[in-house]
Amino acid sequence: MKLYELAPTPSARRVSIFLAEKGIEVPRVNVDIRGGENLSAEFKAKSVNGRIPLLELDDGSYLCESVAICRYLEEIHPSVHSLFGNTPLERAKVEMWQRIIELQGLMVGFQAFRNLSGVYKDRENCVESWGTESRQRVIDFLPSLDQQLSKSPFVAGDEFSIADISAYVFISFIKNLDIEVTDSLPHLKAWFITMTQRPAIVSLTPKK
Amino acid sequence: MKLYELAPTPSARRVSIFLAEKGIEVPRVNVDIRGGENLSAEFKAKSVNGRIPLLELDDGSYLCESVAICRYLEEIHPSVHSLFGNTPLERAKVEMWQRIIELQGLMVGFQAFRNLSGVYKDRENCVESWGTESRQRVIDFLPSLDQQLSKSPFVAGDEFSIADISAYVFISFIKNLDIEVTDSLPHLKAWFITMTQRPAIVSLTPKK
Repeated sequence: MKLYELAPTPSARRVSIFLAEKGIEVPRVNVDIRGGENLSAEFKAKSVNGRIPLLELDDGSYLCESVAICRYLEEIHPSVHSLFGNTPLERAKVEMWQRIIELQGLMVGFQAFRNLSGVYKDRENCVESWGTESRQRVIDFLPSLDQQLSKSPFVAGDEFSIADISAYVFISFIKNLDIEVTDSLPHLKAWFITMTQRPAIVSLTPKK
Repeated sequence: MKLYELAPTPSARRVSIFLAEKGIEVPRVNVDIRGGENLSAEFKAKSVNGRIPLLELDDGSYLCESVAICRYLEEIHPSVHSLFGNTPLERAKVEMWQRIIELQGLMVGFQAFRNLSGVYKDRENCVESWGTESRQRVIDFLPSLDQQLSKSPFVAGDEFSIADISAYVFISFIKNLDIEVTDSLPHLKAWFITMTQRPAIVSLTPKK
């Protein structure tokens, strides 16, 4: 098994935190995304979506999409407390929150950043006004996350889950949009500080 | 258990097809989305994302997000052949394709439609040029789906799965964008015809 990744991208980071939380080690191979290594025919033959992270299995087949990779790793390395939830209702709530964080948070933040910064303008058309609109939608989404975290210690309820990893990556990412979690979002702010202190996340944070 | 839905929306349709494929009946309650019924405080207190479909459980709690609802229904009504896959690798491939269809297809199509048509301009800012760009991205995505369907009878491999339901709803939806699956996409076209003939889908198609 081998993981193709480039540590600084948010999607690669989700998988890295997931692996660290579960204490699993997988050999890593770096891919130069900004240099366009993922645009080569060789890479595209491996990764259906043309993106990282990409997991090479021992039978020579490949899995892409960060959450699919995490789900597979969870199943072949089961923990007493699954990061996808332990009962049908827990699993449904993790999936619900995971999707809310992704569809109303993370993906909207990516669109804001890509369209405002033009970081990938060599390979996609950017629409600056959509970037501005998306940035505003990220700001408008934060209070509902704060509200949820006023009701439970973790995003999907009483237990830490992959939804917390996605939310942590999301909140870390929005500093690229000059969005800050201020005291007006006290539950979100407190949860984020707790997250930065988790041993798995500390282990991945570059030393100053 | 009670399902809040409005049959003509694509997300409600995904859950309806899923239920019909599994042969499960759940009482339905209509919600007037275009009239803004989902914007009321009462509805928002039930649905975390303020959207349908929304599943009311017997203990009075609620689940939103169509895929979370389907996953829950699959788990409490297990079939010999799960629509989420039967082995860790099958489940990972279903999730991978499900995400590709959603993130590169369905969600992009929704953004194209909402920004071009202004259907919800009473409640969101529309950016027409992003609608145009998204429509083009939908067109650019179709060949990779055609290629996958040249290799396997169903989207995620040898078995019918929730990824086929998502892809069917996506391909049905893009007629709203004046995008047609032509003979230049023969595998996608053939798969779509097979899908329209499935008993579950026939049972949900209005009689002419």
